[in-house]
Amino acid sequence: MARGPLAIIAGGGDFPPALAEIAARQGHGLFVAALDGAADPARFGAIELTSYRLGQLGRLLDELRRRKIADLVLIGSLPRPSFGALRPEASTLKYLPHFARAFQGGDDHLLRGVVRFFEERGFRVHGPAEIAPELTAPMGALGRKAATPAQHELIARGFCMLSALAPFDVGQAAILADHRIVAIEAAEGTDAMIRRVAELASSGRLKIARGDGVLVKAPKEGQDLRVDMPAIGPDTLRNIAEAGLAGIALRAGRVLVGDRGKLGRLADQLGLFVEGVI
Amino acid sequence: MARGPLAIIAGGGDFPPALAEIAARQGHGLFVAALDGAADPARFGAIELTSYRLGQLGRLLDELRRRKIADLVLIGSLPRPSFGALRPEASTLKYLPHFARAFQGGDDHLLRGVVRFFEERGFRVHGPAEIAPELTAPMGALGRKAATPAQHELIARGFCMLSALAPFDVGQAAILADHRIVAIEAAEGTDAMIRRVAELASSGRLKIARGDGVLVKAPKEGQDLRVDMPAIGPDTLRNIAEAGLAGIALRAGRVLVGDRGKLGRLADQLGLFVEGVI
Repeated sequence: MARGPLAIIAGGGDFPPALAEIAARQGHGLFVAALDGAADPARFGAIELTSYRLGQLGRLLDELRRRKIADLVLIGSLPRPSFGALRPEASTLKYLPHFARAFQGGDDHLLRGVVRFFEERGFRVHGPAEIAPELTAPMGALGRKAATPAQHELIARGFCMLSALAPFDVGQAAILADHRIVAIEAAEGTDAMIRRVAELASSGRLKIARGDGVLVKAPKEGQDLRVDMPAIGPDTLRNIAEAGLAGIALRAGRVLVGDRGKLGRLADQLGLFVEGVI
Repeated sequence: MARGPLAIIAGGGDFPPALAEIAARQGHGLFVAALDGAADPARFGAIELTSYRLGQLGRLLDELRRRKIADLVLIGSLPRPSFGALRPEASTLKYLPHFARAFQGGDDHLLRGVVRFFEERGFRVHGPAEIAPELTAPMGALGRKAATPAQHELIARGFCMLSALAPFDVGQAAILADHRIVAIEAAEGTDAMIRRVAELASSGRLKIARGDGVLVKAPKEGQDLRVDMPAIGPDTLRNIAEAGLAGIALRAGRVLVGDRGKLGRLADQLGLFVEGVI
């Protein structure tokens, strides 16, 4: 995209400030709307923020138009809000029916509803990877350690299995160890899946030898990478190390990792490989 | 199979006594070897048992030969034994290398090793379904309740997904709710998967409406139904009810359910459907 004015609508976590910093450096006329209760202002350093509650959507739209901003990125975590806690301002009330509908379905449905909301009002919604591909998994190892041939075999089988699940809209990650698939992620999320494997291993129901055990993670087919890109972070690496697994393989360019250098150093410290593959 | 003498090598749970009762009624010359610490003698009623420790395998083989028994069934649960706790008798020592190799792999590998062990010694290993098909899921509902068309749609999608996982030797069960696949079983087992969904629902991370939510269960492709048939029991039904799910669909003839009438009555009590499908 061109270097026009850009709005970042920022939720929680490390990714919003990392993206804001990169976008500011790229010379975008940057406007950061920090979502109240989700984004942590302290993490944004010198970057100027404006805070909005979800119920102040009307006010946010007015501000974007006033600033002639047509391009925006939605990034960061957001605790699924209760519809009752929105406390909508007068200028937001008219949008409630749209979100009432979006709230009926699962998370995917809600996210699609949010994208459609902005698009119907003339905004272009961009993915963080379009603005800052350097925040995604690169090809190859992030740290010093790379996967062994035996680990690559597990990784290939894991990604192949995730692809087989594509028609069923499930399977963003899996764990392989002991020559087989030991966990497949569905609604529980990646961290809960890693904990499950750690528990199976510590109770002796699963044997994970040293150097065995990989997490594979990729977007589901059809997942909207603009607003719902899979991500890993320092906690993922720590959980993987704690579960006694050897490393992580990610679809290069299609999974957010944040600061690659920082994550690579943490991987080295923990003795893990973290690798992007095609 | 003909009505020749038959040995049942019995582990824990309801299935071994149920099978023994049926086999006795069929007029098999029946010999039941109850595995010490696994089979519960009290459950076998009038049927005569002989107890064996795993370390008395040599003694068991001698007895089978003395009785000219060539046909046997291995059935029931067995806590995965530690190799050190076998305390083998002299007549069993020579078999240790076989089992030492079988112990190296996963559970599947161990089971295949056990089957091969008996086959190499001239025994025929039969599945419980060959002897007593009435212990497996029938076609149609076990109790009064049948799945609705909407539930059948979820069930079809679930079985289709499990089939897609077949090449990867994983996926014996899954749970669908809220129009999607919310859990896939790998190494954790069916009960742990049901508990996971119950926790996601009770923490509000997953919405399961009344009448929504089905468990689908089928053998993995290539699973040896002689010694490793998937099974459900009263606890499965109770867990499903507790998780707020609507029912269970099973591959007819390919999942053990034990006493169909008893399970059907429990399904009625709990307000669940339990249905066998092709």
